[in-house]
Amino acid sequence: MTTILRGNIIHAPVFGKLEAVPRGFLVLEDGIIRGLYAELPPEYAACPVTDYGNRLILKSFADLHLHAPQYPMLGMGMDLPLLDWLHTYTFNTEARFADAAYARRVYRQLAHDLITSGTTRVAMFSSRHTDATLILMEELERAGVTGYVGKVNMDRDSGVAQEGTEESIRETLRWLDGCRFAHVKPILTPRFTPSCSDELMAELGRIAKERGLLVQSHLSENPGEVALVKDLHPDCAQYWETYDKYGLWKPGTLMAHCVHSDQREQEAMAASGVWAVHCAASNVNLCSGTAPIREMLDRGVHVALGSDIAGGDQLAMNKVVTMSIRASKIKQLETGAPFLTVPEAYYLGASAPQEWFGERPGFQPGDSLHAVVVDDGGLPEPVRELSLSERFERSIYLMDKSCITAVYSGGRKVLG
Amino acid sequence: MTTILRGNIIHAPVFGKLEAVPRGFLVLEDGIIRGLYAELPPEYAACPVTDYGNRLILKSFADLHLHAPQYPMLGMGMDLPLLDWLHTYTFNTEARFADAAYARRVYRQLAHDLITSGTTRVAMFSSRHTDATLILMEELERAGVTGYVGKVNMDRDSGVAQEGTEESIRETLRWLDGCRFAHVKPILTPRFTPSCSDELMAELGRIAKERGLLVQSHLSENPGEVALVKDLHPDCAQYWETYDKYGLWKPGTLMAHCVHSDQREQEAMAASGVWAVHCAASNVNLCSGTAPIREMLDRGVHVALGSDIAGGDQLAMNKVVTMSIRASKIKQLETGAPFLTVPEAYYLGASAPQEWFGERPGFQPGDSLHAVVVDDGGLPEPVRELSLSERFERSIYLMDKSCITAVYSGGRKVLG
Repeated sequence: MTTILRGNIIHAPVFGKLEAVPRGFLVLEDGIIRGLYAELPPEYAACPVTDYGNRLILKSFADLHLHAPQYPMLGMGMDLPLLDWLHTYTFNTEARFADAAYARRVYRQLAHDLITSGTTRVAMFSSRHTDATLILMEELERAGVTGYVGKVNMDRDSGVAQEGTEESIRETLRWLDGCRFAHVKPILTPRFTPSCSDELMAELGRIAKERGLLVQSHLSENPGEVALVKDLHPDCAQYWETYDKYGLWKPGTLMAHCVHSDQREQEAMAASGVWAVHCAASNVNLCSGTAPIREMLDRGVHVALGSDIAGGDQLAMNKVVTMSIRASKIKQLETGAPFLTVPEAYYLGASAPQEWFGERPGFQPGDSLHAVVVDDGGLPEPVRELSLSERFERSIYLMDKSCITAVYSGGRKVLG
Repeated sequence: MTTILRGNIIHAPVFGKLEAVPRGFLVLEDGIIRGLYAELPPEYAACPVTDYGNRLILKSFADLHLHAPQYPMLGMGMDLPLLDWLHTYTFNTEARFADAAYARRVYRQLAHDLITSGTTRVAMFSSRHTDATLILMEELERAGVTGYVGKVNMDRDSGVAQEGTEESIRETLRWLDGCRFAHVKPILTPRFTPSCSDELMAELGRIAKERGLLVQSHLSENPGEVALVKDLHPDCAQYWETYDKYGLWKPGTLMAHCVHSDQREQEAMAASGVWAVHCAASNVNLCSGTAPIREMLDRGVHVALGSDIAGGDQLAMNKVVTMSIRASKIKQLETGAPFLTVPEAYYLGASAPQEWFGERPGFQPGDSLHAVVVDDGGLPEPVRELSLSERFERSIYLMDKSCITAVYSGGRKVLG
C-alpha cells in the first residue's frame, strides 16, 4: 500500500549537512520509504497524501544509552558523588523492579514519554530482572518504540541489585528464550567490568558468539572507574581490553561515555567497529568530564548519543543534542577542538544511529520510516520569514512535547 | 484582607539550605506575608484557605538579565561566532522593534511565557526604542511580571540598531517621563561600554544620580570584548572602571556575565555592592566560558541568575538553575572549586534576588508574595515516598509549564 507524507522535510543524510525539501513528498510503501521528492512523480498522483502543511517533518531521534529502571529517580541525587548516587539511589531503585506490577506502570510511562518526545529507536539497559525486562520490551513494542533492550548482568559489587553468577547466566538464557517481539530485540548487557566477574564475562562472550547477539556496556566514564578496572584486570593495558578479552568488543558493540578514552582506546574502537555513545548531560551532572567527541570523529569512531537516564536528567533527545553542543563548546574552550554544529549534533542523535540499525542516514529509499512532525507555530513570532534550516535549529533548541504533533516509527504512525 | 495558602511549602531563606514545611500555611494580608506556619495559629481559624493539597509551593524565580527584543531569535544562530551572531541576528532583530504593533505581539507572548514558567520578577533589557520599551513595561504589568526594564542606550558600533548620542539622551528622558507603572520600574541601561560613547555614559551617570535610578549593563563576558574596552578606555586598568568613571558603578548595579572578572574586579564588585548576574547557558552557547561563581560568592559578591535570552536559549528559570549547576560542575573539573548544589543554585535564582528588590530571602513576614505552585504528580512514579527536598530537587530539574498550576506575583494571583 502506497502512502505519501507532505510537509517541510528536513534530514541529515551527511554529517554536518542538512537537506531541506520545502513542501516535499515522502513516498512510502507499507511503511518503507520509496523516495523523497520536491515534486510528486506522476505515478503517485492518485495515492492518498497526509499533508502536514507548513510543519516540519524530521528524522526522529535514537537514544542509544539509557537505563529504563532509573526513570523513577530522574532528576534526583544530582548533588551526590557518583558512588553515593549509585548506592543511595541507583541500586535501590533498580531492585524495586522485582515487582512486575510496578515495572509495568513505570515502563508504560517511559515508553509513552519516549514516543511523545520524538524518540523512536533505543538501545536500553533494563535491570537484572528477567520478568521486568520482558515487560519493558512488551511496553516499548506496544508504544511503538523499536530497538534493543538488555537484561543487565551484574554479579559483583552491586549492592542490593546484585545477582549470583549462575543465576545471572540462567536468567539471561531464560530472558533470551522469552524474547518474541517484532520490533524490540535483545542485546547482551554486562553492566560494566567492575560489576561482572570474569566467569560471567566469559559466559556472556560465549552466548554473544553462539547466538550472534549485539553487546552494550560502559567504558571509561570516570577516572576512579578506570583505575578500578586496571586493578581488577592487571593483564589488560586498557579498559577496553577487558571486554575484548571475552569476545565482547566487536562490530556494533555500544560503549557508553568514553569520556576518558585516549588515542589508543579510540583507535581500538575505530578498528573494531565499536560505537561510542556520547552522554553529555550525564557526563556533566556526575562530574565525569567532557568527552573528546571531535577527536573520536576525526579518528573514524562511530558516535551516537544517549540520554543516559538517570545520570542524564533529560529524556527528550533534542535536549540531549543541544547539551552535546554545549559540552563540545566547553571542550573547544579547553582544547580548541571545533564544537559540534547543530547539523552535526543532530546527525549524531538521528542519522548516525541509523547505520547502527543497518540503515543509511536520513530518509533513504528502502529504509523504514522514523519521523517526527513538528509544529513550531507556537514559538516566538520571528522578525521575518525564517529559512527551513533556521526553523530546524530553533526547533531543536526549543521544542517540547507540545510541538510534536505526529510520530512515525518503523513505518507505523504511533502518535497523532 | 487575610488569606491563607496551604501546601508543601519550600523556600531557601539561607544560602545552601532549604526549609520545607509539609502541609504548611502561608498567611497573607493584602498580598503581604504575615507568617509561615506548620500549624495554623488559632486567630486565623476563620480565614479562607486556598488548599493546594500535596502540591509544592515554592518561591518563584527572578530573572535578572534578559533581552526582551531578542525573544524572536531564541534558539537561532547558536553556531555563529559572537560578532556574527550580533550582526546577523541581534541588531537586525532589535531594529524591528521600531514597529509598535510587532512589539506588542512579541512582548505579550514573552510576558505570558515568563509567568507560565514561574518567573515573576525581572531586570530586563529592552531595545533602544522608547515606545516599544513602554509597551514592554505595560505588557509585563498586565501579565503580572514585576521588576525593572531599561530602554537600551547604544550610540556606538551597533549596526542598524544604533542611535545618535543626543537622540539617546532625549529618548531616555522621554522614556523616563512615560514610566507610570505600579509594578514595573525603569532602570538605566547602557548596553555595554563598547556601544556607548563617553559623552553618553557621562550623561547617563548624571541622570542616574539626579533621579536615583538603578543601572544594569554587561561586564567581562569574553576576552575580545575585554580587550576592546581596554583599547577604548586606556585610562582604565579594568573594564569595571569604565562604568565607575561615570558614576554607574554603585550599590545595586547589575553586571551581566562577569565570566572573566579576576580577583581585583570581583573585589571591586563586593566593595561597591555591585551584583553579578550569572548567565550560564549563554556563557556556554556563545563560547564565553564558565564564570567563577564560587569564587565570587566566597569574596562576598552578590550573585543572581539570568536567562540572558537570546544568548541563553531557555526562558524557564528552573532550567537556568540546573544549567548553572552544570556550569559549576565544569568549573569544578577545571579549578576544583566546589560545584553549586541544588539548594545553592536555587537560592541564586529565587532568594538572592529578593535582596536586590529590597526584601529578605525566602517567604518572610512583611514581604510581598512571589510564589509558584508545582504539581509534580505527572513525573515518573518513584520507588518510595519522596521527601519534600527530593520532590523539590526533581521539580527543579524536570518541571515544565505543564507542572505549574498557579503563580503569585507581588501578592496577586496571576496564573491558575
